[in-house]
Amino acid sequence: MIAIYIQGDRILNIVIIFTHPNQSSFSGAILKSVGENLSPRHNIKVIDLYKDNFDSRLRFDEKHRRRDLANDPSTQSYRDAISWADHLIFIFPIWWGGMPGILKGFIDRVFVSGFAFHYEGIFPIGHLKGKTSWVITTHDTPFLAVPFLPDYGKVLKKFILKICGIKLLKSTSIPNLRSSSIETRQKALNRIAKEARKI
Amino acid sequence: MIAIYIQGDRILNIVIIFTHPNQSSFSGAILKSVGENLSPRHNIKVIDLYKDNFDSRLRFDEKHRRRDLANDPSTQSYRDAISWADHLIFIFPIWWGGMPGILKGFIDRVFVSGFAFHYEGIFPIGHLKGKTSWVITTHDTPFLAVPFLPDYGKVLKKFILKICGIKLLKSTSIPNLRSSSIETRQKALNRIAKEARKI
Repeated sequence: MIAIYIQGDRILNIVIIFTHPNQSSFSGAILKSVGENLSPRHNIKVIDLYKDNFDSRLRFDEKHRRRDLANDPSTQSYRDAISWADHLIFIFPIWWGGMPGILKGFIDRVFVSGFAFHYEGIFPIGHLKGKTSWVITTHDTPFLAVPFLPDYGKVLKKFILKICGIKLLKSTSIPNLRSSSIETRQKALNRIAKEARKI
Repeated sequence: MIAIYIQGDRILNIVIIFTHPNQSSFSGAILKSVGENLSPRHNIKVIDLYKDNFDSRLRFDEKHRRRDLANDPSTQSYRDAISWADHLIFIFPIWWGGMPGILKGFIDRVFVSGFAFHYEGIFPIGHLKGKTSWVITTHDTPFLAVPFLPDYGKVLKKFILKICGIKLLKSTSIPNLRSSSIETRQKALNRIAKEARKI
């Protein structure tokens, strides 16, 4: 866990991007813990992809060009929220090594060229510089195995956010969830609460 | 490109899992080329996720348990197709380093515990042994950069298919698509046609 926050008493606009079909899940408990422990001086918005019934299928063709997606009215509110945010908090379970399909589709449809980056030749240039992020994931894999496995949040943290210019301030991974005890889970929630209070 | 096929004159049940919103895209041209060049002795089914309007949002909660997803009627036809297949051909573009959200959601919803694998303690045991696969991807990144980037198909090829027991026979990656010439694209299609004829 990287845990260096030097944001002092700044008032931040914070957007939490929450991805889990079940609010009673451990991911739901993480969302609750983060929400309750962020300082009241901040402005907070939650994007709950399942509650929004977010359509995660990126579509384009000759009539609906990919280059126009940065102006797509159906995703405008999400682009507005991200533009407004100083700090993004992602909370999601790792399924099959990576982001749930609905979250990957959110990235596909919202973090589009012209909004999140543009190309200069073959190089993408990020448009979201100055923003910071905290990525919180849960998974069922023993933590010793994870460095040898592909993704497990690395694609979001080290590739997508980086290309967009969003700085990863903190990364929290709760491993081995399926076989962990209530005590272990409570400790993880306490750790998350503590980190949230630092923001 | 790995290109060792020793399947001889076997008649194969082949399922092509196609993921692109636009049939006129280069991915569409790949689908056409594969379809036209597979031997007529094989039995072929195409799963076109966009045409099927596939709902890529995995849902479960206390009432709809994750353990029951292997019997979910809404994904039965896909499980049947995969059970029927001897050989799976995946055709998709790499977006943001990985599978499009709709394809990741297909994996989340269809390759579920009890169908594609089960756990023995902490170890997943694949249920789809004996099947083979060919993964064909396109992307906009210069091919020299790809080994240093996360995913780019590795999560599907080296993690998901492997855990399920599906052997990767062949992997074809068409790099640098956005800036490639018509000649380069035609050469890639010829290469794919040649590989398809070997099956």
